[in-house]
Amino acid sequence: MPPSRRLFLQTATGLAMGSLVRPGTGAAATARQSAPRGRARARALGIICGDLPPGPLNAIADVQGVRVGHTTVIKGEGPLVEGQGPIRTGVTAIVPHDGSLTREGIPAAIFNLNGNGEMTGYLRIRESGLLTSPIMLTGTFNVGRVYDLTLEHLLRRDPDLGVSHPFPTPVVAETSDASLNDTMARMITYDDVAAAIDGAVSGPVPEGAVGGGTGMVTYGFKGGIGTASRRLPPAQGGWTVGVLVQANHGTRRLLRIDGVPVGREIDDLRPGPAAPPKSIIIVVATDAPLLSNHLFRLAKRTVMGLARSGSISAHSSGDIFLACSTGNRFQAADGSPLRPIRTVPDGLISALYQPTVEATDEAIVNAMTMAVTMKGKNDHVVHAIPLDRLVEVMRKYNRLREPA
Amino acid sequence: MPPSRRLFLQTATGLAMGSLVRPGTGAAATARQSAPRGRARARALGIICGDLPPGPLNAIADVQGVRVGHTTVIKGEGPLVEGQGPIRTGVTAIVPHDGSLTREGIPAAIFNLNGNGEMTGYLRIRESGLLTSPIMLTGTFNVGRVYDLTLEHLLRRDPDLGVSHPFPTPVVAETSDASLNDTMARMITYDDVAAAIDGAVSGPVPEGAVGGGTGMVTYGFKGGIGTASRRLPPAQGGWTVGVLVQANHGTRRLLRIDGVPVGREIDDLRPGPAAPPKSIIIVVATDAPLLSNHLFRLAKRTVMGLARSGSISAHSSGDIFLACSTGNRFQAADGSPLRPIRTVPDGLISALYQPTVEATDEAIVNAMTMAVTMKGKNDHVVHAIPLDRLVEVMRKYNRLREPA
Amino acid sequence: MPPSRRLFLQTATGLAMGSLVRPGTGAAATARQSAPRGRARARALGIICGDLPPGPLNAIADVQGVRVGHTTVIKGEGPLVEGQGPIRTGVTAIVPHDGSLTREGIPAAIFNLNGNGEMTGYLRIRESGLLTSPIMLTGTFNVGRVYDLTLEHLLRRDPDLGVSHPFPTPVVAETSDASLNDTMARMITYDDVAAAIDGAVSGPVPEGAVGGGTGMVTYGFKGGIGTASRRLPPAQGGWTVGVLVQANHGTRRLLRIDGVPVGREIDDLRPGPAAPPKSIIIVVATDAPLLSNHLFRLAKRTVMGLARSGSISAHSSGDIFLACSTGNRFQAADGSPLRPIRTVPDGLISALYQPTVEATDEAIVNAMTMAVTMKGKNDHVVHAIPLDRLVEVMRKYNRLREPA
Amino acid sequence: MPPSRRLFLQTATGLAMGSLVRPGTGAAATARQSAPRGRARARALGIICGDLPPGPLNAIADVQGVRVGHTTVIKGEGPLVEGQGPIRTGVTAIVPHDGSLTREGIPAAIFNLNGNGEMTGYLRIRESGLLTSPIMLTGTFNVGRVYDLTLEHLLRRDPDLGVSHPFPTPVVAETSDASLNDTMARMITYDDVAAAIDGAVSGPVPEGAVGGGTGMVTYGFKGGIGTASRRLPPAQGGWTVGVLVQANHGTRRLLRIDGVPVGREIDDLRPGPAAPPKSIIIVVATDAPLLSNHLFRLAKRTVMGLARSGSISAHSSGDIFLACSTGNRFQAADGSPLRPIRTVPDGLISALYQPTVEATDEAIVNAMTMAVTMKGKNDHVVHAIPLDRLVEVMRKYNRLREPA
Repeated sequence: MPPSRRLFLQTATGLAMGSLVRPGTGAAATARQSAPRGRARARALGIICGDLPPGPLNAIADVQGVRVGHTTVIKGEGPLVEGQGPIRTGVTAIVPHDGSLTREGIPAAIFNLNGNGEMTGYLRIRESGLLTSPIMLTGTFNVGRVYDLTLEHLLRRDPDLGVSHPFPTPVVAETSDASLNDTMARMITYDDVAAAIDGAVSGPVPEGAVGGGTGMVTYGFKGGIGTASRRLPPAQGGWTVGVLVQANHGTRRLLRIDGVPVGREIDDLRPGPAAPPKSIIIVVATDAPLLSNHLFRLAKRTVMGLARSGSISAHSSGDIFLACSTGNRFQAADGSPLRPIRTVPDGLISALYQPTVEATDEAIVNAMTMAVTMKGKNDHVVHAIPLDRLVEVMRKYNRLREPA
Repeated sequence: MPPSRRLFLQTATGLAMGSLVRPGTGAAATARQSAPRGRARARALGIICGDLPPGPLNAIADVQGVRVGHTTVIKGEGPLVEGQGPIRTGVTAIVPHDGSLTREGIPAAIFNLNGNGEMTGYLRIRESGLLTSPIMLTGTFNVGRVYDLTLEHLLRRDPDLGVSHPFPTPVVAETSDASLNDTMARMITYDDVAAAIDGAVSGPVPEGAVGGGTGMVTYGFKGGIGTASRRLPPAQGGWTVGVLVQANHGTRRLLRIDGVPVGREIDDLRPGPAAPPKSIIIVVATDAPLLSNHLFRLAKRTVMGLARSGSISAHSSGDIFLACSTGNRFQAADGSPLRPIRTVPDGLISALYQPTVEATDEAIVNAMTMAVTMKGKNDHVVHAIPLDRLVEVMRKYNRLREPA
Repeated sequence: MPPSRRLFLQTATGLAMGSLVRPGTGAAATARQSAPRGRARARALGIICGDLPPGPLNAIADVQGVRVGHTTVIKGEGPLVEGQGPIRTGVTAIVPHDGSLTREGIPAAIFNLNGNGEMTGYLRIRESGLLTSPIMLTGTFNVGRVYDLTLEHLLRRDPDLGVSHPFPTPVVAETSDASLNDTMARMITYDDVAAAIDGAVSGPVPEGAVGGGTGMVTYGFKGGIGTASRRLPPAQGGWTVGVLVQANHGTRRLLRIDGVPVGREIDDLRPGPAAPPKSIIIVVATDAPLLSNHLFRLAKRTVMGLARSGSISAHSSGDIFLACSTGNRFQAADGSPLRPIRTVPDGLISALYQPTVEATDEAIVNAMTMAVTMKGKNDHVVHAIPLDRLVEVMRKYNRLREPA
Repeated sequence: MPPSRRLFLQTATGLAMGSLVRPGTGAAATARQSAPRGRARARALGIICGDLPPGPLNAIADVQGVRVGHTTVIKGEGPLVEGQGPIRTGVTAIVPHDGSLTREGIPAAIFNLNGNGEMTGYLRIRESGLLTSPIMLTGTFNVGRVYDLTLEHLLRRDPDLGVSHPFPTPVVAETSDASLNDTMARMITYDDVAAAIDGAVSGPVPEGAVGGGTGMVTYGFKGGIGTASRRLPPAQGGWTVGVLVQANHGTRRLLRIDGVPVGREIDDLRPGPAAPPKSIIIVVATDAPLLSNHLFRLAKRTVMGLARSGSISAHSSGDIFLACSTGNRFQAADGSPLRPIRTVPDGLISALYQPTVEATDEAIVNAMTMAVTMKGKNDHVVHAIPLDRLVEVMRKYNRLREPA
């Protein structure tokens, strides 16, 4: 990456109100523990989706071993000059465990609610039931590049892959940042991808207009990355369920928050040129030792969390949901004919459904309440949801609780 | 059927507050246009799910050609004598069009949200994309019998089936009436099945504890059959979407109506022995000329309506959803090599999603508000949701609208 | 069942050349160890599909714990009197393990090659990945009845099912015996079903025109039930793969045996009225501890064995294939939060594919070489493949090996 | 691309015996109408898979409007210097119709036999049932790059894509050329991709070690691209079915050609370092106006053609099969609410299955008989199947027919 670009990135930081994460610098990541100026997570506002308690971070990183890294790329302002900017894009890496990402697989499954989008590696996961890649989230037009660069990064780390060991199929999912970003530019570099993966941390997860979520729009408000978690009581196994979304979906009129028709109540502050409702990517992680067929069921439950916010999953959307479990690891090159694993009885799986629904619901709200107003190509502005008005509406419908 | 049984059925009518439909008697069907004493549909209470206008009946029968018939079987009271009663069961037939049910197919698709249940004919519909059977809804343990008797009825009507014409695979779906009914008895006769099919009418659809829904429990209240519809404006094609549910699902605590946490507010009146959350069958019909791959997408959207009421689709449920379109008919024995059909562009399909979500949501509410309290085996009582308290709760959360 | 009928069955035995199995009588079953007069298994003729060695019985019962029972119902001759006969039908039960069939599940999966048929319980197995039913094979029009009677039998054994324990969904698969049988009669009784299940034995498996295969036609020759197995060497785990087919499929012209175009060479002896190519049900069992996602892969491999015999899986067929593993049992009511199981590494799964392909291929040949000529309704005759001519054709193409 | 490289490509032509196609130069393409020196298509050798007649080219291009372009990249010899070569790779483009590839969709479906591989765009096609991309075939590690470059090429042609019109999801499928190629190098350029797409022609299709098939190995012999077609008689609609494979699969021992155990008979000439069995991509095109659910069924039938050659679809393979129909085109931006299309009755679909099975079988044989011996990285040699010995073996088993 040319120095000039990174320089610009730093200059652009102000625009995005501190949403830039310089991957690999733990300090920067920690700084994000607090919200961008004037923003807050749902729970801090008194909006509490569901009944169950969250984990300590209320984030996907509450699942032991799961790390998240963002690279945010913001560059230029004003009129679109195709291929040159302005750029409002990025890449997010979810690193699902701390073993070898490619030589050890963890059970995983993908549910496709609406497939007008892409999540590479889908067939591999469906076949083997195993995830052997970091999960990369980015803008639609970056998919090929991020796929290629993630592969390069995995190969640099382990050159035997694809020769004496099974080749890795990168998992790259996307939603479109075309409202704000010069999509044609596809300005993601090797360093950006490597930084997101290598810089992934297990602490608090930056939300809103960061990483893959940089240019995204949620129910006509600025959105992007959101996360939440739930923890079961010890009697039900004590498992954690964490969710991370890249939210770029929804029609304003249909927006509901905890059942309240917020979209009917706040119907101004719409993005300039009307954009069709688009997509959401949802990733669920749990430490409950679920097998891939269990995880397919978990992935389907995210739909029920998504529905609570008012989505109808429009035709043009790529609503693709991945669930994975860190509870067992499978060695690809294991030579022994028998492998002991563990799992939970079917009767206990339901206990993981409500956490999944609630954490998905809350992660979507967080993506909006943590995102800041952004100006992108052609000075197109996408507004952040105004938190004061949101609180007022929740109160009008008698749904505001004591802030957590 | 022995005369004594039918006699008893008439006597039992009072118990179910007039929910018995004597199929084939138009008068009885019309009588149901009004609700059972003290019950009402959601819209009449001021509960209006979503934005779009319903069709004239606000029922699946608003779709031209779709008819519904119920046979309700209620017999005996007091302690369970296995195989002899008490009986609280029945069968509902959805007749999807007025042509030959077996020689003409209409496009259809099934989405399986949670398959711990049965919908026979699933593979046939998935393979051909066509529905060539009435859709039969009943109690879990009646499936084999209703399959056999529906087949017999279709064969009696058309003995060439399975010989010179393709054999029919009956579509039979179920939810469990084990809370109220002597399931072991499996007391459905040929006449019951024939009456439901032949007596299906295109007028108002009886709801609540009728037909296949007779013994069902919804969010811990008495439930069963519910229906609703939506009609698009002419500019969007003027299509109708109708939904019918057999609702036997849900945990009280999680019940939401139009976003209001009704289950937290009304947490008494629970059914005696705690029953695990169970299943829901959803059937969508539309006159929009959708093909089977479109209908699969439509069937998936019912999940989003279901989620609005608070379902998490528990492990033990059979949540299986069928969508069909009357917009094209396929002649199985058509000799010509080319067949003209029509369909809608992909871009217009989204217009059918919101109606599907809203009608599903409202049909579930109707199943509860129209059902009457029922006493079943071992004097086990399942209470109807108290409408006065429901209205009060909706008002508390500022969600009551002017009754429609 | 009226005594007269069983009496008739005994009289009819000659017609089917000893193919009647009186379930529950070990003697009768053992008697079948030898082939019907003039018939032989493929391997005894010098036809050896593939490279790998079979198990001791060369049958699905080589998998420890797997048992098979047949009830064959043959009654009447001459013109069809609908609902009264002649009858050429039956039911086969595969009992997959010797534990509780309904309280203990074993991993299973179903692959649907062409779904113009029925296998009930499909959705249940797809959801849970577990088989909790015997596998029942019968004629198309018997499905509802066999479903109902299997359920009754399971409930009689264990009345808590569906109340305090999960209800069982019977697995009933079918192919059409309409060429020989009065399908309208649906003459399967409770005793027939109970006898097939309770009389299932772990010894040699009768083949050809027995049980569910009684009225079936394979590539225009008499067919029905066939079975075969393969055993891996200890270094590859020593696992056994067993296959049982109910074969009612195929176009004569396309028939190949071990690659030899037998259908082109023997094109006489066709069944009277031209019947469209129909269906095949394939069941695979193994003691390798595979999970359900592995078994789905195994089930798909049966297609490759089926293809070797010349099938193109015609539009009208119900070609539905189930694979299950006895290597782990799951207790439905297990109270513990964690359950240790075992499985094989992905890299070893391929070792089970060639056995599956070969055993499927050979089971189909056995279904033909073991079936006897049968005369059914309206004196319609379906000829057995003539073994002397078959051997001659194999020799012509240099494919005859030393008989095993 | 630096001039030096293209220069080298020309020099390397000899090595690959004329397999280099300079895309866009009609002359070069026509030159390939004849086989490489010493090679021949199956039919010219007297090996005729099945009964039905091929189209004029016996190639996928017999389907009106379907074009194929190859870019072959061969560079360097001797020891592997990672990232620098030797290179034995390429890209093949199947352009499925002559309209706008991205604004007009044609019905399509994908069947995944074994998903340890990648075909991007899978979810998009499954959702919409439409193909809106050229089909790109390449080496495993090129997927990300070819995805990105194909997207770039489509956007350059039509910059409104992804803004006012739906974005395109490139369809890129792969098999691994790791036996011969420096996979790490990923040396595919924009010009290579553009040349394959823009240079696609409707005439004879080069086969063997060309385009995406350059570095592939089939049953331990040199393989790669193969194609074949079948044409139905006018009474069955006169439709054409064309198949193209990129074959990189199979265990020598299991190889069968037209039922003859060729792999047992020719078991020398094995590739140096033992390579695990790998993958095959199969593409079917037809002018029969099938809808996407029909095409899914067609795609499944390719398995039965593949099985005839001896595949068991090993665990490590990416065996992913796409079928598309040129019989209807759907305008993505069509504003009218109703769209007339045409299709064939279900009963006629079976007529397309046998052509699909036979053309798949023959395309695989062609991939081997047309490929030339190739030396790749570290002087590793993969031998072409010796045609004289092949003919001799076919004769031994009495399967040689009069050459076509």
